[in-house]
Amino acid sequence: MSDHRVVPVILSGGVGTRLWPLSREGFPKQFWPLVGSATMLQETVGRATGPGFEPPMIICAEAHRFLVAEQLREAGIAGGRIVLEPVARNSAPAIAAAAILAAEENPHALLWIMAADAAIKDLPALHAALARAAAAAEAGHIVAFGMRPTSPETGFGYMEAGAPLPGLEGASAIASFVEKPDAARAAEYLAGGRHLWNAGMFVARASTLLAELERLTPELVSAVRASIEESKRDLDFVRLGASFAEAPSISIDYAVMERTAHAAVVPADMGWSDVGSWDALWQVSPKDAAGNATHGPTSLVDAKNCYVRSEGILTTVVGLEDVVVVATEDAVLALHRDRAQDVKKLVDQLRAQKRPEAGAHRRMYRPWGHYEGLIQGDRFQVKKILVRPGEKLSLQKHYHRAEHWVVVNGTAIVERDAERILLRENESVYLPLGCVHRLENPGMIPLTLIEVQAGAYLGEDDIVRFEDTYGRA
Amino acid sequence: MSDHRVVPVILSGGVGTRLWPLSREGFPKQFWPLVGSATMLQETVGRATGPGFEPPMIICAEAHRFLVAEQLREAGIAGGRIVLEPVARNSAPAIAAAAILAAEENPHALLWIMAADAAIKDLPALHAALARAAAAAEAGHIVAFGMRPTSPETGFGYMEAGAPLPGLEGASAIASFVEKPDAARAAEYLAGGRHLWNAGMFVARASTLLAELERLTPELVSAVRASIEESKRDLDFVRLGASFAEAPSISIDYAVMERTAHAAVVPADMGWSDVGSWDALWQVSPKDAAGNATHGPTSLVDAKNCYVRSEGILTTVVGLEDVVVVATEDAVLALHRDRAQDVKKLVDQLRAQKRPEAGAHRRMYRPWGHYEGLIQGDRFQVKKILVRPGEKLSLQKHYHRAEHWVVVNGTAIVERDAERILLRENESVYLPLGCVHRLENPGMIPLTLIEVQAGAYLGEDDIVRFEDTYGRA
Repeated sequence: MSDHRVVPVILSGGVGTRLWPLSREGFPKQFWPLVGSATMLQETVGRATGPGFEPPMIICAEAHRFLVAEQLREAGIAGGRIVLEPVARNSAPAIAAAAILAAEENPHALLWIMAADAAIKDLPALHAALARAAAAAEAGHIVAFGMRPTSPETGFGYMEAGAPLPGLEGASAIASFVEKPDAARAAEYLAGGRHLWNAGMFVARASTLLAELERLTPELVSAVRASIEESKRDLDFVRLGASFAEAPSISIDYAVMERTAHAAVVPADMGWSDVGSWDALWQVSPKDAAGNATHGPTSLVDAKNCYVRSEGILTTVVGLEDVVVVATEDAVLALHRDRAQDVKKLVDQLRAQKRPEAGAHRRMYRPWGHYEGLIQGDRFQVKKILVRPGEKLSLQKHYHRAEHWVVVNGTAIVERDAERILLRENESVYLPLGCVHRLENPGMIPLTLIEVQAGAYLGEDDIVRFEDTYGRA
Repeated sequence: MSDHRVVPVILSGGVGTRLWPLSREGFPKQFWPLVGSATMLQETVGRATGPGFEPPMIICAEAHRFLVAEQLREAGIAGGRIVLEPVARNSAPAIAAAAILAAEENPHALLWIMAADAAIKDLPALHAALARAAAAAEAGHIVAFGMRPTSPETGFGYMEAGAPLPGLEGASAIASFVEKPDAARAAEYLAGGRHLWNAGMFVARASTLLAELERLTPELVSAVRASIEESKRDLDFVRLGASFAEAPSISIDYAVMERTAHAAVVPADMGWSDVGSWDALWQVSPKDAAGNATHGPTSLVDAKNCYVRSEGILTTVVGLEDVVVVATEDAVLALHRDRAQDVKKLVDQLRAQKRPEAGAHRRMYRPWGHYEGLIQGDRFQVKKILVRPGEKLSLQKHYHRAEHWVVVNGTAIVERDAERILLRENESVYLPLGCVHRLENPGMIPLTLIEVQAGAYLGEDDIVRFEDTYGRA
């Protein structure tokens, strides 16, 4: 590929609204296994791991930091850096931050920038394109991957390939950019063969990128530089400072690619999909003879070209064609595949109706593990809580609820006022209203417990934290 | 109406498979609120309550006895008799049993026989038809209600009205019976005006019915008589004996109506629906301007003529027309309305796949109340248990599981080996594996508790019963 190793820069800031009810702000698309058994983020990182690659840099929302860390750990990826955005500011500021951080170690670091949530079928084709792009990037270009269209998509941006770059095999200048064309024009592009999908995947030296960003959007770079000076860093995380919010919210396409003389494109054919909608997911999923793709417990009678997915509940379809049915623990969507873009309208409607399902899942991720509500009743609720080995919750108390904890898997240490109690499987403890308590998993396997809360008010905000390993006190 | 009061005989033996996943063997259609806020059974009984009516007689499967009793109590219906079939034998044996039981008190009792699960919009029209039918029945006829067709239904049986019966206003002889006609013939019937839907609703004197049953199906009557001789009776229930199974499984139409010289029909127009499928339910449900009927937490975008029902989970539809989406706690169905009859195929398929959702609900009804599984995990499960005031579970023990009980509403008395423990709200008790225990609600309000089971085997069959109020020990 080249003498320098590539630094994968993975942009994980998306929300994936059009894949609701699976993808939501609290747990977006890139953290779900959509096509295979690994999550989209894990698959993305996996494509950029091995000899020739530095550990990845992942840029994500602060709220997702433990999700990203857990998924990297689960996938066995070590040494990566997780860069936390205090607010979302589109791709240009995120890429600027990555370039500045990479340049701290090597000003000419070769960055491979990509979204965390795309599917790619043909890995050899990807890596061949990467080699061509890296060569062009080392010659001073900012190189976009141009995916050869396989259908007349109207939801993507297109690039028109220009003159081949001399001495750089498989790389061309970019003649023009086109934002989301209409159907007629998209059909022309597909037939013409010179237009390529802009997949949001780029290769460039940090120095090249920064020079162009400085020249074209100096205020953006100075805001991002300030946020890096303010940043707090520990082993895994780089927490960007508040100045990040001063950067304009702008894509790398508008900020740089459409305006720089160094733009280049490497056309490629690697079975890429942005998996941006339920229809797109149906397209890339394996199907049965009737064209149906299923996931989870499902049963179909006379269904055709349907996508049916369940995260647990038995999900059935009778006599439907071109329909998507998705069931999560707390929400169901039935959708005509042709209307896959309109899921966004539905989510907007749910937000207006203040339905919690619009943005949050029933399972809530915390630095120490996760919990999920099992039932809410009259002055009680029941939760399942999982604490990862070695983790502990904050030292806390509640003013309005008492709690019963029953350990069902693993071992817990419970602090209750002055006591310190070791709780084994099938043992329980009572935490009266107002007691100061803390839960810890001292063991080597996950701790699962059932929490029964009783009280007149059971909101998450009835918590006083005295001490917290994760800086939340 | 007449000098004798009418005995309502309500046949509640159906399963309502085509309304899966709401209606299942364990909790069929007639026990659900489908159209209004009362259940179909409660609405049916309500139409046959008041001056002029004796308390109702309800014939149902033994498994549903506590469901029927609870729904009658809830509706404030007192004095009814619940006749329990040991096995389902279609309508003729059930009606024979009702006639024999009614005749014990009054040989000429006027029986009004009906299904437990139909909807009727126009009550005055129903009661007017009942008055005409009662007059004809007192003159010795077995009188069917003939519903005037409002659409060319191919799923119903039809009756052709014959010559008017002299002196009996609004009653005719029956010229012929037609089982489920094809579409062309159904359209002819609709246009012709002489054919009527057979709604399974009849009026006759017990003595008339029994005489004809004796004459036409003597072996049926003798099996049913034997089952009544063997029956066990208490305040509410008549538990038919095993001989009931000897009766042929046959409908009253085949057994009597098509063969007797005393058949008559009273045509009526009362907005009747058998609510036999999701499409039929959509037909009778109130709809918005786009033709959508919804129930429970739902949200629709560009939906048209859809039926969307949720028993709790947020259920959403985007861009679909003529589709039914139904979500219960453990199953989802998406269905084209035109294919409403094929839900039966789906349920057959689920049975073949041995999916428990085919026949059982997550909420299980017991004589003392009900319970439902909240979560099943690795060597643990969590249930919510509700015990009605004054009820108690059996004295029992388990060989493979320990249980933690946390009272969240109400008050419990727990027997645990030699102890007797009063448990208040927000108190808990531990039942070690092998202990002999019993749960009782001594209070005036329902007792709700959360049960956390821990053990290597958690099947319902790990139970040894020592004593049981409901005869299950």
